[in-house]
Amino acid sequence: MPVQMDAAALNAFMMTEFPQVAAQFRVERTAPMEADIRLLVDEQHLRPGGTVSGPSMFALVDLAMYAATLAMIGPVALAVTTNCSIDFMRKPEAGRDLIGSARLLKLGKMLAVGDVLVRADGSEDVLARASLTYAIPPRR
Amino acid sequence: MPVQMDAAALNAFMMTEFPQVAAQFRVERTAPMEADIRLLVDEQHLRPGGTVSGPSMFALVDLAMYAATLAMIGPVALAVTTNCSIDFMRKPEAGRDLIGSARLLKLGKMLAVGDVLVRADGSEDVLARASLTYAIPPRR
Amino acid sequence: MPVQMDAAALNAFMMTEFPQVAAQFRVERTAPMEADIRLLVDEQHLRPGGTVSGPSMFALVDLAMYAATLAMIGPVALAVTTNCSIDFMRKPEAGRDLIGSARLLKLGKMLAVGDVLVRADGSEDVLARASLTYAIPPRR
Amino acid sequence: MPVQMDAAALNAFMMTEFPQVAAQFRVERTAPMEADIRLLVDEQHLRPGGTVSGPSMFALVDLAMYAATLAMIGPVALAVTTNCSIDFMRKPEAGRDLIGSARLLKLGKMLAVGDVLVRADGSEDVLARASLTYAIPPRR
Repeated sequence: MPVQMDAAALNAFMMTEFPQVAAQFRVERTAPMEADIRLLVDEQHLRPGGTVSGPSMFALVDLAMYAATLAMIGPVALAVTTNCSIDFMRKPEAGRDLIGSARLLKLGKMLAVGDVLVRADGSEDVLARASLTYAIPPRR
Repeated sequence: MPVQMDAAALNAFMMTEFPQVAAQFRVERTAPMEADIRLLVDEQHLRPGGTVSGPSMFALVDLAMYAATLAMIGPVALAVTTNCSIDFMRKPEAGRDLIGSARLLKLGKMLAVGDVLVRADGSEDVLARASLTYAIPPRR
Repeated sequence: MPVQMDAAALNAFMMTEFPQVAAQFRVERTAPMEADIRLLVDEQHLRPGGTVSGPSMFALVDLAMYAATLAMIGPVALAVTTNCSIDFMRKPEAGRDLIGSARLLKLGKMLAVGDVLVRADGSEDVLARASLTYAIPPRR
Repeated sequence: MPVQMDAAALNAFMMTEFPQVAAQFRVERTAPMEADIRLLVDEQHLRPGGTVSGPSMFALVDLAMYAATLAMIGPVALAVTTNCSIDFMRKPEAGRDLIGSARLLKLGKMLAVGDVLVRADGSEDVLARASLTYAIPPRR
């Protein structure tokens, strides 16, 4: 199954649909059943001590999975997250963007299932991992 | 085990420790192994269509579990979320605060485990449910 | 929404459909959006030290959620588990049956979502908790 | 960190510690932070229609994670599963063994976190995925 939307198309789509959210993120790469997203970390994402907040990491994994799904099915579908299970494993340090790397494991008619690894930009250590399920609305 | 911190004490503690986050929430009630938290919904929590965003609901369940834990162990401990599994079941409508009701199912030496139900203020319908695990740092 | 199947009807249905599994369990009670299931603990469920195995507890929560769903939609539907997130909190002791208490939080057209608490028979302590999602096949 | 136990050592250890369980499984491979386990599918694992049961797949992912952990820390530790989130994506067909491939994402002092993919022997399709957390008892 070929990719329907590349990184540029996804960035343009998200900037039109939800500009405030999109300004915090950038789709870096799409590939069949995959997408990498960057969280452009700034003050609003930090907790005291300089670590990136849990909700910011949740937003990153959710958007990475969304991007990987749209990359495959195109901009029309209005997918919604039905489940996310996320493990926080290491504290992110301040001053570095985070990269969420999503892979789809199943892209069915009703449900898409995948997982996401979160790393600091330029690092191999996995800071968080998440698995997500999206409900895909019936396609006409 | 008696409650160590009531709602007023928790609100004061959170306002001191992370004022930006605390301004969006209010602890409504604590009881043994329980806490209710209100998300004061405004523009920043909404997605197009007026629904409350997933990351905002994640922030609510995370804070509700944190409040229920601190209510029992007091303000000293620096607990961190290690896992959250969240199910989104119904779309919140705009213009109503959300209430997260946390109950602790286990409060051990190393780990606290609990779950949270999210409802719109004044409604019985459960919009989301989450289970969370916190790692509790060794106590001196 | 009234209950479509009571405990006796569910026990009869499961004994017909999958007799080997059903012999290990007994539906104790159904109520609107609820079901209680007993795991009749014997040798095959135990690990060294006498504790009930993780897979046996998984089987219990899965069946409890299945029973709560069938209680509401009747015996026709072929629901399948799509996700289960389970927390193991306390070790069960040998020689006591386990009770899984399921409640449905959402019973939609496509998905049912609920959670289950596991306790030893006659005890209040929660040994495990689980949340589960079932996919419900299209109804004719 | 080098591997402390290879497949043969793990198979011997499990056959000594819990022979009934071990007879259903075989450790195929260990590598740093990884292990592959085979479920030797027979009658006891099947549901009507010939599909492998959910509890059997749960047992497989749990054991795969356990093997990957023991491979790194050696046979002494008594790790226990504290959380498992599992997604069932495709129905296994009868008559083929299942392979669970575990990778550890974090091996800390208190907690090990990893995930497992389940495939039919000789197939690329992922039938189930799971993430698991193990609590590691204090080491002397």
